[in-house]
Amino acid sequence: MKEMQEKILAEGKVISGGILKVGSFLNQQIDTDFLKKMGKEIAELYSGEKIDKILTIEASGISIAVAAGMEIGVPVVFAKKHLTSNVDGAFYSADVHSFTRDEDYSVVVSIDFLSQGERILIVDDFLANGQALNGLLSLVKQAGAEPVGVAVAIEKCFQGGGDEIRGRGIRVEALAAIESMSADTIVFRNN
Amino acid sequence: MKEMQEKILAEGKVISGGILKVGSFLNQQIDTDFLKKMGKEIAELYSGEKIDKILTIEASGISIAVAAGMEIGVPVVFAKKHLTSNVDGAFYSADVHSFTRDEDYSVVVSIDFLSQGERILIVDDFLANGQALNGLLSLVKQAGAEPVGVAVAIEKCFQGGGDEIRGRGIRVEALAAIESMSADTIVFRNN
Repeated sequence: MKEMQEKILAEGKVISGGILKVGSFLNQQIDTDFLKKMGKEIAELYSGEKIDKILTIEASGISIAVAAGMEIGVPVVFAKKHLTSNVDGAFYSADVHSFTRDEDYSVVVSIDFLSQGERILIVDDFLANGQALNGLLSLVKQAGAEPVGVAVAIEKCFQGGGDEIRGRGIRVEALAAIESMSADTIVFRNN
Repeated sequence: MKEMQEKILAEGKVISGGILKVGSFLNQQIDTDFLKKMGKEIAELYSGEKIDKILTIEASGISIAVAAGMEIGVPVVFAKKHLTSNVDGAFYSADVHSFTRDEDYSVVVSIDFLSQGERILIVDDFLANGQALNGLLSLVKQAGAEPVGVAVAIEKCFQGGGDEIRGRGIRVEALAAIESMSADTIVFRNN
């Protein structure tokens, strides 16, 4: 998505530790016009697929998942990052390690909201090591549902998570895929 | 909003401690068609007002704020619940006590995303004691911005936060306002 690359070049900030800050339009402030376009693009990429539901993870995946869900016309379920009073009863859970924050957490979703046989599109803002997405894929598998694929706003290819998931036969689409980056230069995959 | 009342009556579950579970359509699974209607309703309620930006709080406020932001055509900023690596540099911060979880946390937003003189609509899923909304109002005040008002999906009037904020001259709108509730009966304010 050309416009995502342009946004990253115009507003993104690369800081140490392989982190790209896109708080001005994606994960603290949200440009709602641009968000609609992201939703349309994800709907377009997966237009040939039957999708029953979108699964994402709080917090910054929610806006993108909602934009895609509005376009595709399906509900969005968001996994929570730790067990709270809002998830009662039985739930699916998977452990995730965050390299960015160097901490472990669980991703949790009530069994009421993922069902056997459902075709699930997984959506998130970033794909780096793939830890969070692998947690979501585990929840889908635990439910006996089927992953249609993954759609992320930004893939950091050099952290390997996307290609590892593709290697297991799961479709992964990124609106922008970054092959390498430094404070001065960002190189995208496929143009 | 009649349809919100109907949704609550059809799908909401009242549990002990004054908690209403609406996970099936609002804060774990999101009905995206209904979400669009909520966004339109909030835009309609505040149609006479100049709004520069919407402020909400992660995680379950985000979807409603995004739906309203898409309708009104303004950006959404979401405050984070604790200091993470995604907020660097200077920020506004306010302390909040959660009665639901009996814990204290900070709401934090980068100074880059709230500016002096901006007219801010505050959006969240629930309004109970008003702790979270008072935290957001404090961030708006710290920035020298102006609160246009508050819009929430569900107000639990019996917990007093909404009327307390109205008493300070700030407009508060709820898509459904619950006067009282028990396992058997939910009574709405104004019909």
